[in-house]
Amino acid sequence: MNTFGTLFRLTDFGESHGTAIGGVIDGMPAGMTVDFDEIQHQLDRRKPGQSSLTTARKESDKVQFLSGFFEGRTTGTPIGFIIPNSDSRSKDYENVRHTFRPNHADYTYTAKYGIRDHRGGGRSSARETAVRVVGGALARQALATRGITLRAYAIQIGTTTNPEMFDQEILTAKAERDSVGGVIECIISGVQPGLGEPIFGKLQAMLASAMMSINAAKGFEYGDGFKAAGCRGSQQADIFHSGEDGRIHTRTNHSGGIQGGISNGEDIVFRVAFKPVATLPRPLETIDDEGRAATLEVSGRHDPCVIPRAIPVVEAMAAMTILDALLVHESRYSFFSSKNNS
Amino acid sequence: MNTFGTLFRLTDFGESHGTAIGGVIDGMPAGMTVDFDEIQHQLDRRKPGQSSLTTARKESDKVQFLSGFFEGRTTGTPIGFIIPNSDSRSKDYENVRHTFRPNHADYTYTAKYGIRDHRGGGRSSARETAVRVVGGALARQALATRGITLRAYAIQIGTTTNPEMFDQEILTAKAERDSVGGVIECIISGVQPGLGEPIFGKLQAMLASAMMSINAAKGFEYGDGFKAAGCRGSQQADIFHSGEDGRIHTRTNHSGGIQGGISNGEDIVFRVAFKPVATLPRPLETIDDEGRAATLEVSGRHDPCVIPRAIPVVEAMAAMTILDALLVHESRYSFFSSKNNS
Amino acid sequence: MNTFGTLFRLTDFGESHGTAIGGVIDGMPAGMTVDFDEIQHQLDRRKPGQSSLTTARKESDKVQFLSGFFEGRTTGTPIGFIIPNSDSRSKDYENVRHTFRPNHADYTYTAKYGIRDHRGGGRSSARETAVRVVGGALARQALATRGITLRAYAIQIGTTTNPEMFDQEILTAKAERDSVGGVIECIISGVQPGLGEPIFGKLQAMLASAMMSINAAKGFEYGDGFKAAGCRGSQQADIFHSGEDGRIHTRTNHSGGIQGGISNGEDIVFRVAFKPVATLPRPLETIDDEGRAATLEVSGRHDPCVIPRAIPVVEAMAAMTILDALLVHESRYSFFSSKNNS
Amino acid sequence: MNTFGTLFRLTDFGESHGTAIGGVIDGMPAGMTVDFDEIQHQLDRRKPGQSSLTTARKESDKVQFLSGFFEGRTTGTPIGFIIPNSDSRSKDYENVRHTFRPNHADYTYTAKYGIRDHRGGGRSSARETAVRVVGGALARQALATRGITLRAYAIQIGTTTNPEMFDQEILTAKAERDSVGGVIECIISGVQPGLGEPIFGKLQAMLASAMMSINAAKGFEYGDGFKAAGCRGSQQADIFHSGEDGRIHTRTNHSGGIQGGISNGEDIVFRVAFKPVATLPRPLETIDDEGRAATLEVSGRHDPCVIPRAIPVVEAMAAMTILDALLVHESRYSFFSSKNNS
Repeated sequence: MNTFGTLFRLTDFGESHGTAIGGVIDGMPAGMTVDFDEIQHQLDRRKPGQSSLTTARKESDKVQFLSGFFEGRTTGTPIGFIIPNSDSRSKDYENVRHTFRPNHADYTYTAKYGIRDHRGGGRSSARETAVRVVGGALARQALATRGITLRAYAIQIGTTTNPEMFDQEILTAKAERDSVGGVIECIISGVQPGLGEPIFGKLQAMLASAMMSINAAKGFEYGDGFKAAGCRGSQQADIFHSGEDGRIHTRTNHSGGIQGGISNGEDIVFRVAFKPVATLPRPLETIDDEGRAATLEVSGRHDPCVIPRAIPVVEAMAAMTILDALLVHESRYSFFSSKNNS
Repeated sequence: MNTFGTLFRLTDFGESHGTAIGGVIDGMPAGMTVDFDEIQHQLDRRKPGQSSLTTARKESDKVQFLSGFFEGRTTGTPIGFIIPNSDSRSKDYENVRHTFRPNHADYTYTAKYGIRDHRGGGRSSARETAVRVVGGALARQALATRGITLRAYAIQIGTTTNPEMFDQEILTAKAERDSVGGVIECIISGVQPGLGEPIFGKLQAMLASAMMSINAAKGFEYGDGFKAAGCRGSQQADIFHSGEDGRIHTRTNHSGGIQGGISNGEDIVFRVAFKPVATLPRPLETIDDEGRAATLEVSGRHDPCVIPRAIPVVEAMAAMTILDALLVHESRYSFFSSKNNS
Repeated sequence: MNTFGTLFRLTDFGESHGTAIGGVIDGMPAGMTVDFDEIQHQLDRRKPGQSSLTTARKESDKVQFLSGFFEGRTTGTPIGFIIPNSDSRSKDYENVRHTFRPNHADYTYTAKYGIRDHRGGGRSSARETAVRVVGGALARQALATRGITLRAYAIQIGTTTNPEMFDQEILTAKAERDSVGGVIECIISGVQPGLGEPIFGKLQAMLASAMMSINAAKGFEYGDGFKAAGCRGSQQADIFHSGEDGRIHTRTNHSGGIQGGISNGEDIVFRVAFKPVATLPRPLETIDDEGRAATLEVSGRHDPCVIPRAIPVVEAMAAMTILDALLVHESRYSFFSSKNNS
Repeated sequence: MNTFGTLFRLTDFGESHGTAIGGVIDGMPAGMTVDFDEIQHQLDRRKPGQSSLTTARKESDKVQFLSGFFEGRTTGTPIGFIIPNSDSRSKDYENVRHTFRPNHADYTYTAKYGIRDHRGGGRSSARETAVRVVGGALARQALATRGITLRAYAIQIGTTTNPEMFDQEILTAKAERDSVGGVIECIISGVQPGLGEPIFGKLQAMLASAMMSINAAKGFEYGDGFKAAGCRGSQQADIFHSGEDGRIHTRTNHSGGIQGGISNGEDIVFRVAFKPVATLPRPLETIDDEGRAATLEVSGRHDPCVIPRAIPVVEAMAAMTILDALLVHESRYSFFSSKNNS
């Protein structure tokens, strides 16, 4: 399904080489003054062709809003928008019309739908993540009014965890006509205690679902994550104390800001692992859609590493997840709270 | 939210020390002859008190079905069931009525709802996973009619990955009044190509959400997972070939049976990391609900490691996820397929 | 599907002659002190066997709550409950095991599911509406804290619209071994302006869906309803004015309290038409499940008119609909409102 | 919320005087060859300015598809589309910027969202129904492949039920600077037995929700509807018989093709009542957004009766509802059916 969220919802459409990609944001709170330049700035962060680290493919990625605003403010009605496609060298892909690229979605889309748009990966292309960035940029501005900020960054590229060596790691892979994976960490600050809806809507379950829907994501963890599996309980205890701000805090944050599926007010910390890009500028052995052996040489322009462009996508999905959780939580929380407080 | 799934849905209720836990399964295909002993067998796998590796707490965990069957077969109507609670030594928990256990949900439930049932963890207790096991056992029987099987097992306990040392690792932690985490791997075999609903309902996103909703789960990965982040693209290529069974296969399975969010017919392989149990049989520093420092000594009976009892829960959530994906996929897939085939 | 609502949700299970019927209420605001006697009182209103106007069948209809409360207050966790079945004279129904009762769901359930529980109508029995009454009774108590009240009553029985003649109309039909239909009107007072989610979640669409899910309901209208079709626009104008309470009101209420799909603060008024009961105490011509002609004489005990017992069900569905709409509305409305107000 | 449906879903956006209206269709079965001229034809049926019976306002209503098709066939991926707005005489509406038109959504949108786009009714304008017609046109083509057809028509305009007098009734109202309501009937033929998901997804509940979401709809009924309320049970019996086609049929169709919430294979018949258009070409008494008395003279161009243009909208909503019900039903129905049949 192509809709994300419960009360704040993004519906996403579009193929890599179609007329346009776009989406509909439903449930945006009304009355917010929107910084449209900031939305475009977020899109530009994801845009290819910005450095030698990313593909030379050019995508202008200019978002056009079609509804949902009045005199610069949100109206609470659905926000329709499109990002026209351009620079589509569809002919680059003619050789994959009947051939399945390894580790791509070519075979599975054919198996599922019986038909696929082979140009540039069609719907399975990471191009659709631009739509998510628009939704995330709006969510982010709404969260900022509540003092919630979020920030993602690479913590591993290939086998290195030293940020100063990240560019080199990517350039080396590129020079070797290869690609490389990595890990992104994201920190969300300023989240009040109480977000998340046990038992199936636990905050970590929502975040995991959001992150694992991103192309090339292979793993998700929060707090101490997989490392916690190797720890003793006595090493993991996040001891509570009363903070100077009058709120309850923990001395450590092994929990990653979430306990029992609900935010506890500490920084929410999670990580997402991405595999290396599957498309390589070298001949690959495969088969065609009649099962015959084939060799594939892909001439399209591709990233040697998804991490640089995936960072704003991780932030976007995180922003939408948190805003949605906030709206769902407050609807019930506020019901008796005025009464209880008086 | 306490409902899981789209077409096959489990709604789950109940607290650790209430009258009963239970659930409603909606969307079960009609006409299936059910093996009720097998359902109880699955529940027994999760039951505590079975060995020195798990808590001595006794839970009879007998499921009572209230609706949805007629003369031994499913009718397609919702299946209501309860599992009565017993052996509830609620007094064991009186000391946590106003005190927050570290790394538990005591504080966050209070922050979210303004009220909590402190007895045995209330709703946040892992006791509710028995309900999931019932839903999973039914899903599993439906999947079996399609030749789909699934199996989970521990691959890491604490710092060891040697299965022969797993029991010792747990017993050592227990002897030291401590607890230990671990990792469970699950393999799903016999899944046809085509399951999963891009872009937000990708199969790995559904599985991640399902797994991260389990108590104590800290991380999820599929295929090569986090290890893929450190690999080159050339090392990850799953080359296609035509199998002897007349279907398309891959020579390797770095993809873990899912490509582009859709099953590709290979084994689906994923792993879930669990943290060590938070409750320790030793004094813990904490605060009470007025922010005052307190020392907590928990006298309830607890597992030194969740892994043995989490294995059937992982299988249950996987079974429900796959059945749901199968139903959603087939609804659309079959629409023109008879036409297309003729 | 057997779940109703978005944020306040009732999941409903159970057949007429199974072990029990019951449900799960998810999304109940936390911290509400519940009047359990009042819930039972609502159930008693729906109970059969109370007068000569309703069936002599006895159903004790005692609800047992299994979770979701702590020391008399709601905890925000799901509320599981059951109503055990009793007095099930299943043998009364043996003659309909292979025969389809006219205007009942016997044939369609068989067509849909390939199997049916024939005893007492199984899942299609109006018995399941007792579950809705429990959900409605809780919603009603929550609404009362906001000053929202609701009341339904008959406005037509058979061909008469004179309330003093209603009992006679039913008794006459009963004496003639026949049944009779009617119309229920419901008024909801105290609803703030703003409830309803255009364009597909318009308040009248939610109410219509809720009412048309009740057994035997054949029509829904709000405000002037079908009568409006025959009116001129100039006759329907609800002129606004500033009320003495400082709020905006309309002089008339042709709109039935809803404009553009959103409540306007006036009384919400709607009506539901019910068909006469299909089961008649006389021989009926039909066919069996092999298509052979058959004559059916039903010996079960049935109501000559559903209206008396449908009234609390209409109120229950209305209460759940309004509470759900209120929660959804407030989640977004409150987002910037504190800011805007300051 | 602005999404309709469960497996076949339309997400709808756009205001009357914004850049464009549009939508996203998700869940369209893959592989269908689409007749795009037929889609445009359906849109043209709804278009204003076609005769003296409808507004002289011109809307070109040309739909542009942006995704979801490949070489003329559906791909199973989401179908994004827009219909650009034009001929927007926004200045016509400057006088309602701060004034609430009676029986319109001006006041309620302001109350709900705190802000509204006053131009042409903004989001509450019936203009958005063009988007529904596109969704319905696609659903209709899918249904046609299964032999399902549907047709709506007026059965009442104002107080007349004589179709030959309908045009005159509208022209008279128009000449008198007034407007008039009416009733539309819709018949759906060729639906197999089994569609509809008790108890809350009964087919009549889905249809009622769909119809009551249409602007100006005030009532819904199916089969004998409100008339059934005045009937005896003995008058309503739809006696079963084995048809010459080897299927089970009923001799009469008081049930309107639905029994127990599930289609029974007979024609599905329902009716929708529409109120007279609220906007009248004459001065109307009202108040402004500060509660002061005002007189409003609307100079925009409006229909004297919604019925002619609402007919294709009723068909569109019915088509989407039936296709969605068909997909949901088949997913479960087909699960064991091959097994059962073999």
